[in-house]
Amino acid sequence: MDIYQRLREEAYEANMQLPKLGLVKFTFGNASAADPAQRVFAIKPSGVPYEELSPEKMVVVNFAGEVVNGRLRPSSDTLTHAVLYSHWPDIGGIVHTHSTYATAWAQALRDIPIYGTTHADHLPIDVPCAPPMPDEMIEGNYEYQTGIQIIQYFQTHGLDYRQIPMILVGSHAPFTWGKTAAKAVYHSAILEEIAFMAYLTEQIHGITGHSSVPARLKQALIRKHYERKHGSQAYYGQASND
Amino acid sequence: MDIYQRLREEAYEANMQLPKLGLVKFTFGNASAADPAQRVFAIKPSGVPYEELSPEKMVVVNFAGEVVNGRLRPSSDTLTHAVLYSHWPDIGGIVHTHSTYATAWAQALRDIPIYGTTHADHLPIDVPCAPPMPDEMIEGNYEYQTGIQIIQYFQTHGLDYRQIPMILVGSHAPFTWGKTAAKAVYHSAILEEIAFMAYLTEQIHGITGHSSVPARLKQALIRKHYERKHGSQAYYGQASND
Amino acid sequence: MDIYQRLREEAYEANMQLPKLGLVKFTFGNASAADPAQRVFAIKPSGVPYEELSPEKMVVVNFAGEVVNGRLRPSSDTLTHAVLYSHWPDIGGIVHTHSTYATAWAQALRDIPIYGTTHADHLPIDVPCAPPMPDEMIEGNYEYQTGIQIIQYFQTHGLDYRQIPMILVGSHAPFTWGKTAAKAVYHSAILEEIAFMAYLTEQIHGITGHSSVPARLKQALIRKHYERKHGSQAYYGQASND
Amino acid sequence: MDIYQRLREEAYEANMQLPKLGLVKFTFGNASAADPAQRVFAIKPSGVPYEELSPEKMVVVNFAGEVVNGRLRPSSDTLTHAVLYSHWPDIGGIVHTHSTYATAWAQALRDIPIYGTTHADHLPIDVPCAPPMPDEMIEGNYEYQTGIQIIQYFQTHGLDYRQIPMILVGSHAPFTWGKTAAKAVYHSAILEEIAFMAYLTEQIHGITGHSSVPARLKQALIRKHYERKHGSQAYYGQASND
Repeated sequence: MDIYQRLREEAYEANMQLPKLGLVKFTFGNASAADPAQRVFAIKPSGVPYEELSPEKMVVVNFAGEVVNGRLRPSSDTLTHAVLYSHWPDIGGIVHTHSTYATAWAQALRDIPIYGTTHADHLPIDVPCAPPMPDEMIEGNYEYQTGIQIIQYFQTHGLDYRQIPMILVGSHAPFTWGKTAAKAVYHSAILEEIAFMAYLTEQIHGITGHSSVPARLKQALIRKHYERKHGSQAYYGQASND
Repeated sequence: MDIYQRLREEAYEANMQLPKLGLVKFTFGNASAADPAQRVFAIKPSGVPYEELSPEKMVVVNFAGEVVNGRLRPSSDTLTHAVLYSHWPDIGGIVHTHSTYATAWAQALRDIPIYGTTHADHLPIDVPCAPPMPDEMIEGNYEYQTGIQIIQYFQTHGLDYRQIPMILVGSHAPFTWGKTAAKAVYHSAILEEIAFMAYLTEQIHGITGHSSVPARLKQALIRKHYERKHGSQAYYGQASND
Repeated sequence: MDIYQRLREEAYEANMQLPKLGLVKFTFGNASAADPAQRVFAIKPSGVPYEELSPEKMVVVNFAGEVVNGRLRPSSDTLTHAVLYSHWPDIGGIVHTHSTYATAWAQALRDIPIYGTTHADHLPIDVPCAPPMPDEMIEGNYEYQTGIQIIQYFQTHGLDYRQIPMILVGSHAPFTWGKTAAKAVYHSAILEEIAFMAYLTEQIHGITGHSSVPARLKQALIRKHYERKHGSQAYYGQASND
Repeated sequence: MDIYQRLREEAYEANMQLPKLGLVKFTFGNASAADPAQRVFAIKPSGVPYEELSPEKMVVVNFAGEVVNGRLRPSSDTLTHAVLYSHWPDIGGIVHTHSTYATAWAQALRDIPIYGTTHADHLPIDVPCAPPMPDEMIEGNYEYQTGIQIIQYFQTHGLDYRQIPMILVGSHAPFTWGKTAAKAVYHSAILEEIAFMAYLTEQIHGITGHSSVPARLKQALIRKHYERKHGSQAYYGQASND
């Protein structure tokens, strides 16, 4: 019996959601599911089309990025996942996509401003966009450094990865995470929708001839919407919900 | 026998139309169906994915917002529905979505100008956008106050809710209503299309270097298109149609 | 036996293509198929959802706009179709939609400039946009006047309806036509794609800071692409093709 | 037995992917598959809808553009394919589409700037846009000259067709190619996504009031992303992958 069976299945299900939700094309993107107790995660094999995936093809890797189980080469972004898992104990899933609208914001090197309650329902600040890395980090162990950059960005900006489950890597694309791989997928889909809405909001505001971008959502609405879903007094969803 | 069975089914059918029409994602949004005689309505349970809904899971609530029947917690927006039903006797259904284009206009804090006959076929003025509420209303009974704000906006602006079946709540998203839940869903879909077209109209006009937004639809066309569908001499549709 | 059976079926098939091609929502739009010899056409009934249509529900109308056969009320735009058929002997089908991009150009009151060979493959000039009608025409026999306006626009601008199978009615939406109802549907779909591409072309050009709209397609390319499909020496398609 | 059977099937499969991937509508576009050893290729017949295609309907043509086998007239763009195959020995497939976003860039007469790693994953420079041809080339053997123009553009700009598998023909639309017809289809889909993302990137950057277009991707990221997929030390995909 494969002791990683459950993990492979969780990773497989998360990966298969990505094309279904319109978040990836061809072999773009990857999802992983981790078991923090065993310090391993299952991840998509590199360059394999989604329609050819199966739980058995998921590659099991430890938090140092070494393959533990699996015949295929893991995603080229595996070290980025490994770095995030090894630094952030409370996450059980990571997703990387090149979803169109979120990637366009990353390419424009802009944080996504918090313009409405759809955004505040999920995180209480702008979606952060880390700048492209210095050349020596890119030319070195690139995927490892991408993970390090994300960790350091959260540290230097005083962000809590449990509250802000997503980042845009400038010039590249988004990474998202969550308590489970399914939650990480959900955050990728939400990010794409937030990115689309913020783009439209600016275009609709900008056409009136105002030279500046729109005002951000007022603090009382951010607090109300974020807290009613995530605060200690949250009342959204059923009592048994996360 | 469940005396609310018909109401549950009507609310269920309306809710299931929302993802099918592309108006909601995941657990966003909610539809309700009311019985004004009994002063109750059936509404989506909070945070339950659409694919897991059934008529039995709809929650029956009275016009004071108290659960009358049902095991699940009702939508977090239930009090907004209750306030609208208790003030407006001629509506039998309410829908709330975060549909992309309508929400972008709400986030830009702009009324949607009436630019064409597609708009005038459904309502004869700009789609109103209420400003975000004062902080004390947000921090108080937020969902109740959202309903009150909508009622007051219609009163102070002299609008008739039977003629204008929709509003954008600024920084948040749209609410729509109608004689039935199905009509409220229809109004949500129409609003999204109107919002998309108005956005494109402004972009296509604006590229020519005109600094102002386009001119609104002329009054004769508004009157003609609104009246041929909704006036006393309406001749659109079959004689038996509403 | 119903002598209009073939005409009803042709109109039915054309109408059913409209939602399938993404050109209409709900009860928007209508297609008709004409028999110029008998001076009658079959058209969609007014306000009936597409999924409830059948060949039997098509309404047969003569070129004066009078119902000849059928139990339902014909489309509210029937008189516009009748006027076009009675003035233009070489058309066998007409389509009216509120397709999103074409309608946005109509709402912006702009001709669609000819920017590329996709456009020139189908017509050799800008897609014309007629201005909104004077109030007295709107307040009179509106749908009849809409037809008259289209006829007069072609006359005063020296346009040939056999070469230019489409028009935008300003503030309203497009009408298209062709030798058959299927061709008229095809022209509606082409128009929507041309409208989408021209919108994007202007946005992509405009971002570079040029204050003017892009240059139109050069005359040699217009001639080459239009002629290779429609000229006397056309070599596109199979020999048996239209 | 038909010695061209495999080639017909390859061309058929590639053509059928085009509408499935949303890259063509109606009879737009065409794909071909070549056998460089025999100096022949199979290509879509002209003006036949995709749903009526079959391997048997593909037309086999030699590199001089003459039909070798097949009852139907080949695509009107056949000579463009023939010219590319006869000059570039290392390609086995060519695709031409009028895909919406790529065509809009061609109509705006702009190269697509390299703004992110999605682009650099596939080619290390801007997507080139050749200017419209001089009138005498258009009025002469147009499709042959289109091929000549592409060849000359690559020569005069020092581009390698094995590294840059795509071009926009100004005012017209894209051509893409690859070692196989399937790869050429893949490059058409990638180009459409790159074109969409670059459009959004400029809009999102431009709204902030910066008058210039965004900065291109830094060289270290271009090198890293292009090399990890295509360089001699490539580590993306499985060992057996191309």
